[in-house]
Order: sequence, then C-alpha cells, then structure tokens
Amino acid sequence: MKNVPFLSTEIRDGFWKYYQDLNRTVTVRAVYDRFQETGRFDALKCSWTKGQPNRPHIFWDSDVAKWIEGAAYILQGQSEPELETIVDELVARVAKNQRADGYFNSYYLTIDPGNEFTGRERHELYCTGHWIEAAIAYHRATGKDTLLQCMLKNIDYIYEVFVVRQSAAFVTPGHQEIELALLKLYDYLGNVKHLELARFFLNNRGNNDKEQPDPQITAHMPVREMRTAVGHSVRAGYLYTAMAMLAKADNDAELKTACLALFEDIVNRKMAITGGVGAEHSGERFSYPYDLPNSDTYNETCAAIALALFCGAMQELDTDSRYSDVIERIYFNGFLSGVSLDGDKFFYTNPLEIDQKKYQRSTYQPISQRVKVFGCSCCPPNVVRMLASIPRYAYAVAEGHIYCNQFISGSTVLEVNGQSASLELTTNYPCDGRLHFAYHGPDVRLHVRIPAWCVEYTGPTHKGYAEFDLTDGAELTVDLPMEVHFVEANPDVQDNAGRCAVTRGPIVYCMEGVDNGENLRDITLLDNGTYHIAAENFPAPVIYMEACRRPKTERLYYPRTNRRQKFTAKLIPYFAFGNRGATDMLVWAMVQ
Amino acid sequence: MKNVPFLSTEIRDGFWKYYQDLNRTVTVRAVYDRFQETGRFDALKCSWTKGQPNRPHIFWDSDVAKWIEGAAYILQGQSEPELETIVDELVARVAKNQRADGYFNSYYLTIDPGNEFTGRERHELYCTGHWIEAAIAYHRATGKDTLLQCMLKNIDYIYEVFVVRQSAAFVTPGHQEIELALLKLYDYLGNVKHLELARFFLNNRGNNDKEQPDPQITAHMPVREMRTAVGHSVRAGYLYTAMAMLAKADNDAELKTACLALFEDIVNRKMAITGGVGAEHSGERFSYPYDLPNSDTYNETCAAIALALFCGAMQELDTDSRYSDVIERIYFNGFLSGVSLDGDKFFYTNPLEIDQKKYQRSTYQPISQRVKVFGCSCCPPNVVRMLASIPRYAYAVAEGHIYCNQFISGSTVLEVNGQSASLELTTNYPCDGRLHFAYHGPDVRLHVRIPAWCVEYTGPTHKGYAEFDLTDGAELTVDLPMEVHFVEANPDVQDNAGRCAVTRGPIVYCMEGVDNGENLRDITLLDNGTYHIAAENFPAPVIYMEACRRPKTERLYYPRTNRRQKFTAKLIPYFAFGNRGATDMLVWAMVQ
Repeated sequence: MKNVPFLSTEIRDGFWKYYQDLNRTVTVRAVYDRFQETGRFDALKCSWTKGQPNRPHIFWDSDVAKWIEGAAYILQGQSEPELETIVDELVARVAKNQRADGYFNSYYLTIDPGNEFTGRERHELYCTGHWIEAAIAYHRATGKDTLLQCMLKNIDYIYEVFVVRQSAAFVTPGHQEIELALLKLYDYLGNVKHLELARFFLNNRGNNDKEQPDPQITAHMPVREMRTAVGHSVRAGYLYTAMAMLAKADNDAELKTACLALFEDIVNRKMAITGGVGAEHSGERFSYPYDLPNSDTYNETCAAIALALFCGAMQELDTDSRYSDVIERIYFNGFLSGVSLDGDKFFYTNPLEIDQKKYQRSTYQPISQRVKVFGCSCCPPNVVRMLASIPRYAYAVAEGHIYCNQFISGSTVLEVNGQSASLELTTNYPCDGRLHFAYHGPDVRLHVRIPAWCVEYTGPTHKGYAEFDLTDGAELTVDLPMEVHFVEANPDVQDNAGRCAVTRGPIVYCMEGVDNGENLRDITLLDNGTYHIAAENFPAPVIYMEACRRPKTERLYYPRTNRRQKFTAKLIPYFAFGNRGATDMLVWAMVQ
Repeated sequence: MKNVPFLSTEIRDGFWKYYQDLNRTVTVRAVYDRFQETGRFDALKCSWTKGQPNRPHIFWDSDVAKWIEGAAYILQGQSEPELETIVDELVARVAKNQRADGYFNSYYLTIDPGNEFTGRERHELYCTGHWIEAAIAYHRATGKDTLLQCMLKNIDYIYEVFVVRQSAAFVTPGHQEIELALLKLYDYLGNVKHLELARFFLNNRGNNDKEQPDPQITAHMPVREMRTAVGHSVRAGYLYTAMAMLAKADNDAELKTACLALFEDIVNRKMAITGGVGAEHSGERFSYPYDLPNSDTYNETCAAIALALFCGAMQELDTDSRYSDVIERIYFNGFLSGVSLDGDKFFYTNPLEIDQKKYQRSTYQPISQRVKVFGCSCCPPNVVRMLASIPRYAYAVAEGHIYCNQFISGSTVLEVNGQSASLELTTNYPCDGRLHFAYHGPDVRLHVRIPAWCVEYTGPTHKGYAEFDLTDGAELTVDLPMEVHFVEANPDVQDNAGRCAVTRGPIVYCMEGVDNGENLRDITLLDNGTYHIAAENFPAPVIYMEACRRPKTERLYYPRTNRRQKFTAKLIPYFAFGNRGATDMLVWAMVQ
C-alpha cells in the first residue's frame, strides 16, 4: 500500500478548502513576514557580522527550509509567481554560499566556521534534513533543480564526513530529521547511497560506543530494540517515521516490530484525545504512561505533526485503518489548534484546559493565546507545509485496490493496475458523515475507512475498512452516522477521572469561558439531556447541550448538596479554541 | 474573654494524652538528637571557625529557641531532670556569649560580627522573637530567669537601635515573630516598653518611606489597611497574630477590622479543608482566592500552626466559636499530619493528594514521606512546642463565663469571678461526640462550642455555643452527633469540582493506595451505600465505605460506559496518612 501524493487530489470545497485557501492567502505570507522581520531569510546571505541585529541561530535554516517546502507545495497546486520569485531568490542565496566541498549551513558558515559537526545537539543535520525536503518539494513543483543539486552535493559531503572519514565529533544527530528526509529522497530519486546514509544514521543510533545513551534525544538503545516512546516528542516522532520508512524500504521485520510497539505505546498510553503528544513540558517530552495532564501539558504542534508523519509511514507498512484514525484525530484537533482561525497566529503548545486564574501562579502554564511569532519558530512553517499538503494521506493504492483514508471533498487521479483512474468524493465531512463517491477507471476494490469513532456503523468491515467493488462509472454513498459521544479516558489517566470528552465525528469539543462563564470544571453535561448541532462562525458545527452547575456560594466548605442550576452549555470544536480573546477552556467535563 | 493557660488543664486520657506522651517520650528527644547532630546546639557556643563542619545558619537560633520553648512546656507539666539540665546548659551558652550591650544572635556573633541588623531578610529579629517565647516559657516552668534576663537586655538593645537611634539598615523585620513575642512578654511582665516596641514594628510595617513595599513578607501596606492574606504564609500568620494581640491590648478598632477581614479571607477563600494554608509552593505563600491545589500544594506545618495562633488571638478579641472551629480543624488535620504516628518524623509540607507516579515528572511535588531531619527545620520544634501546649486554646474565661472551645479529656482549674473553680471533662473525643462535664465552683455560665461540622445538633446556640448555667457540683452531658459527612468545596475551588471530602467530627479522612489500590482519583464513594466505623491502629477510627471504580482496560479512549466494580473503600484519618510506606493518598473523592 502506497500513499497517493497529495497533488493528485484537487480539493474542491468544504472544510479543507477553507484551510487550504487560508494557508495560501494568509498563513504562508504571515510566516514569511515574521521570518523576514527576524532576519531568518537574510541569514542565508551568510553576511551577518557582530553588532548587527538578528544574529543567526542554529535552527533558522530549518525554519526557512520548512517554509520553502510549504511554499513549494502551494506552487505545486497553482501558479503564484510572487511566491516563486521569493523562493528562487532564497535558493540562489543557498547556491551562492554553499561551500566548495558541498557543506551548507548558514549558521556555521557565518558564525562558527571551522566548527562544523562538532556539536551533536546543534541541529546541523536537522537543518539539512529540512533542506532536503524543501529541495524535493521545489523540484517537484517547478522542475527547478538548483536547490536539489545543492543538497545532493551537501549529502555527498555528509556521507564523506560521517561514513567514510568518520571525522565528525558525533555519529548520529541530536535532532532527528535527516533520516526521514534521506529516505524521502531515496524514494524520489532512487539513489541507494541516500538509503545507505539513512540506514547508517538509524543503525548507529543508540548503538555506537562513541556516543552516550540519551533517552531525551531517543538515542538510548538500538532502534530495533525500542518498544516505548520516550524523550523529546518531535525528535522521537521524526525518528519513528524514518524507522517505519526504512522498515518498508528494507523489508526489515525487526524494525517493523519496533515501529508497531512504539505506535501502540503512543496511541494507547501517551496521546491526548486531541492527538497531542509530549505531555511533559520540561524537555518537551513523552511522560510516563497515562500521564496526560490537561492544563500544564505540552503537546507541541510539531509533535502532533511528527506523529501524523509516523502514522503516514505506518500506513504504508501495515494495512490497518488505525493509522488513519490517528492521523484524522491529529488533523482535526491537536494539529489544527496550532493555527488561529484567521491564519496568522500560532500555538507552540496545545493545552486541553485553560484556567486564566492559574497564570497568577509562578508554575508553568502553556500560553493561552496564539501569537504571531516565536523565538523558536518551528511550528508555524510546519503548519504551512502540512496545510499545503493535507491530502498526503487521504488515499493509498495497492494493486487493484484503492484505500480512502481521509475524507476530503474533491477529485483524485490515481493509477490502478497501471491504468489511469479518477475518484470523486463529494462530502461535507466533518460537518456530516455522508460520503458520495463517483469512480472512473478499471475495475477496482475501494476500501473506505470506517473511523473508529463511528461505533454506529453496522456494515461489514475488514481491518477497519468497508469494501466495495467498483466498475467504471460507479457511484457509491457511504453514510457514517455522526452522533455526539461522551468519551472516557482509561482509568489510569488520573487527570480525567470522572470526566468525559465530547466528540462528534473526528472532532473533539471544548467549552470556553466566553460562552459558558466561570468555573468550567464545575459544569456537568447531562447525558440524558437534549442537545442540538448548529452551524456558526466556525469551520465545523457547535453543540448546545443541557448542563448544570452549582450555584454560587460564599462558603468554602459545606455538606454535600444536590442543588444545581440548569443551563445550556455551548461546546465548540477544540481546534477553534482561543480565537475570541483570553478565556478559560475545558475539554474534559463531568457528565451525568 | 481570655484564654486559660494550657497548664491549667491536666490531660487525663484519650487522644491528646497519646500525643502528649509521644511528644514527651519521643518527639522532643528526636528533635534534640537531630539538632545535636547538625550542630544547632553547638552553634550557641559561638566558637565555630572556618573549616569546621556544621556552619551556623541565620535561622538556627530560632530552631533551638522553639525547642527550648517546647521542652519548657513539658517541664511545666512534670519533672524531667535530664531535659532541664540540657536546657540549663543551653541557656548558659546564651548568657555567656551575649554581648555586653545586650545583643545576642549566635550566627552574627560567630560568622558576621559587625554586620548586625544590616539584612532585613536575615531573620535576626525572628530569632529574637523565639528566644523571647522560650524565655517566658522557661521562666514560667522553672522560675529560672537567666534566659529571661538575657532577653530583656537584648530587647533593650533592640529598642535602642530601632526606635531611639534608628541605626539599623531596616525598620521592620523581614520575618515576623518578634511582634507577637513582645506582646506575649507584655502580657507576662506588663512592661509597657515591650508593648511600645511591638507597636513600633507593627505600625511601621508597610508604612515607612525607608522600606520598599513587599507583599511576600506582608510589608506591602500599613497593617490597618490589610484585608486579604498574601505572601509567605508563616510570616503572614505570625503578623496577623500580633495584630490581633495588639488590637486587644490597645482596643484598636481599625486593627480589629483588619484582623477580621484577614481571618475571613483566609478561612473563606484560602484554607485547605485540613486547615493547611499557603497553597503556592513557590514563595511558600498564599495563592489567589480559591486556588487550593491538592497535589502540588505547600501547606507548611508551621503555617497551620501560625493560623492556629492567629485564631487563638482572635478568640480573645471576638467572642465567636468560629475561631475555635478553625483551631480544631488545624489541630486534628493539617497540624497533626506534620508528625508521624511514631513521633520522630515530620512533614514540612502537607499535600492533600499524592500520586507516586507523578514523582517521575520534573515539576514540583511535595515530599510524600515524613523525614527525620530537614535543612530548614522550623517545623519539627514547632510541633514539639504545640503538642506540649495543646490545651492552650481549650478554655477561655470572661466574668462569670467559661467557654469550652476544645474537648480534651481531663481536669481544668480556672478562676471564676475571682474564685477558684474546676471543670472535669470526660470524653472520648474525637472518637465519639459525648462530652461529660463535672463542675465545682461558684455559679457560672458554661458555653460549650457546638462545632460547625455538627450540623445535626438541634439545641439552641449563641455565637456557636450552647449555654448552660452551672452551680457547684453540677454535671452535664452534651452529645455532639458525629455522623460521616461528605463535604463539598466552593465551586470556585476548581481543583475539587465534582469531588467531596469525607469528614467525621473534626477529622478529615483520606484514602491511601496501600488500602485501596491504584488510581484513587477514579474511586467513587457511594452516598447511599453502607459504611461502618472501626477502631484500628490509629488514634482515631477508620471508615469502611461502599465504593466503586472502573474496571481495568487496555483502551486509552472509549465511549462512556457505566461499568463499575463495587468494593469496600477504607478511609483513614488524614493526619495519619503516609505512615505505612510510600503510597498514593487522596482526600477529595468522587461521590454519587
């Protein structure tokens, strides 16, 4: 099973069209402006000198490269001459300043020449990885190969330093990314040297006498022995993605076993209901099993993206709808919460509960309002590139089979048994669950994912898919009943004991103070009460639901009473929280 | 209304007899041993030199003085020659090393001579305050006046430096204590100079151009303007105690108004159900209203003691049983939790919830096991002096009236209208609520506090007291129905939303992992279930109660189910938690 490239799907309308347009018209430009202001693009000139503002930083190349990758994805869909000119100019700076031996990293070339590859934690190979992804994207979008050639030369140099001469001060990178990028490049160009280099980094990880074991950077044991997710959740996610890609490329059963265990450890023990991962803010890392705090959690936007990438790679390794279930959970919740509804502000961390009063405490609280710029700005360009390529995991094909994994209204061109085919999907998903397919092409079996949330679906499924044999001209309607659900967390998740999340379809809901007043934790939603769905100023419906809360009192402690005030609670999609000023927010509510 | 000195009450048996004996036979000696080992007593020799172990610390004098105060209280009750010899020796060191001008602080005399009174935050006057309390106690217990004379001379010097010459680098102390000690001394000796010095420190506090306002040390505004409790909760409590004492001594209505507001702010908005205060561990301070976290709270043992002292002073300022209600809450819960059942280990902080797994996080968690020694060891000697003087707020008298505020089985001698009287109380309190009084003396009105927890009491009360006119030889039985209650916290206490504490009489209960297994937060106690009380190996009964919990599952998220497993939960007195090895603990449980 092979994922169909996102470009094959033209998004026609609906939910993702809104975000695709927002990304193209607002987000990519907003991130550009912030990067321009902060000197990230100028840094590529490699001309910064002491005393000037905007001193280059070790991770700036990665920010720029991710932005270029996102811009390239946009260019791939349609002509944007202004954007293309900008990228050409940035690429020219890289080409101009690349060292004769192939080395390129604007920070080291400018600030610390001669000390390349001396610091494992200094993000050089991480930057290179993003440059590689950008180069592939830009080459694919425009046919221009300047950046790709630069990176091929750069990789040759890295291969020489790390594999042949082994002259770097470390063996494997402190921040993963190059591994998956090399595997993507191998998939793109087929050059086995790139596969070899990826394999080198993966096989030596936690497995080389020259390096100290370090769980924080997922370098604590050989990758094939890994069974539990630990450490920095973005780095871990990028590593696991590369492991799954290599497992497929090499048909490596041991590696696949590790990937399966890691996936299960994450989604069964270490993932917020929003798909957010990395609960421990100190170290931005996975915490112990079932430690999923709501208020002071981390859940970095990039970590949600990294988990989606991992699931996308697993989807090619193991035919099961559960990977797409997780991707969907991430897309509609913990990833999308990372960007504001107006497209130019971002969350780095994505809490599941905000009590504005807690900001009076001196202890850590995640920011409660999206901001336009971060010093460490990995998330905004990551949002740009993901939004620009949303259909990347929508379809997959295997011989004679099409898998519809994500439900995006639009048309997709595919290759079925060597012949061209097209599949139109008309849907209002995730606002409702009706999927209407129209197919043209050779006989095929269409596998439509029945999401795990859709417990009311009664038809037969196989590995999470409903199967339909289609012939040329076939039309098919699949209805996914989209009820409102109260969802419990495992009893081991102590923070959610006695509480449920409200979901409808793939969307997790939350209450905000601006709608529901103070003390959200004291609200009880009524299971046997009435509710109704309404379309309002959000990309997905809101829910009005009968609820009750305790009346105000002056007393601090008093004998238990059943006095409650009924009211109608308003729930909005979690991803849309924090768009109406600073206010409280809660996902996990009491239900009775 | 004037509190009757604790010595007037001889504890005969029951709950407090256990703790009084434990204190005399174990606790006072355990603290002595730790102080001896750590050089706190040797520091009084003022002979420490560089390179020696156990470098004296600025607050060690206060530790030693509190221990002497506690030892003196024990000596007041009975002869303990060994203890008296120890104290005599320590007092001799003070007398020997006191400077000719009257100054005494072992740290400054040894480590930093010439820099006396240069650092507001360096605890000099705090230490002096404790020396004063120790001097009064030892003089009262033994008639020996060496320490008292030392301190009178010391106070004269302080008066000269602070009031006359105004030559200190600060005006009012950074850690309060001397104010209440001076007022206690004024009460003891009647020397108006001591009252004046106390008034000087209180009136200048937050009210002197030479000092920056500082809420952390409760020096942010003039004391008469204070309405809300802020800052370091021990310092604040000692300050409020002194304010209440001065309000009474000066009949100062403005100060009384401030004290009433501060009391109400604390007990209506900032006090744990255990009587613990100081919710914010950073700064060991009061947090914002209703911020009463359970797990990462602070609730220092000394802060509970300080609040009890404040309530004891308020009790003399304003006849109302609510002050005694709070004292009782503290005594049986947040104070007593500070010491182990075997008497030689202590908590500095007193959390209301412990999840052992959380100690894997990098964020702050209070210690979950009492320890024998702390570097900052203010709490253990504070426990010693409080346990040795438990009846200090049990009785109060006013002309023709006796107030019974705390229920301690024993006999008390009092003065009623200038005549000697005795009141015997026979009770098993707090194990049950029957109080049997036998009175000898002139006609008197006895006011028996009806605790606020006793909502089932149906007789008439006035300001929280049931009133009985007694004549010589009268006997009286008062029954306080002692039911098990589920107690809610104000809806503004977000951490306790949907949860209740279990109380019986004055005792708050908790569940421990050692009795109830994992995931205490997931346990639901059944309001309509059965329960029974049992006497076990604790100084107060345990409660067995029907409860349920969710069964184990592998799934992380799943649609709400009503599947529950019934079991019998065991609840033990909160003060006794953490005495059976490291285990989880929970006060606030779900109830349905």
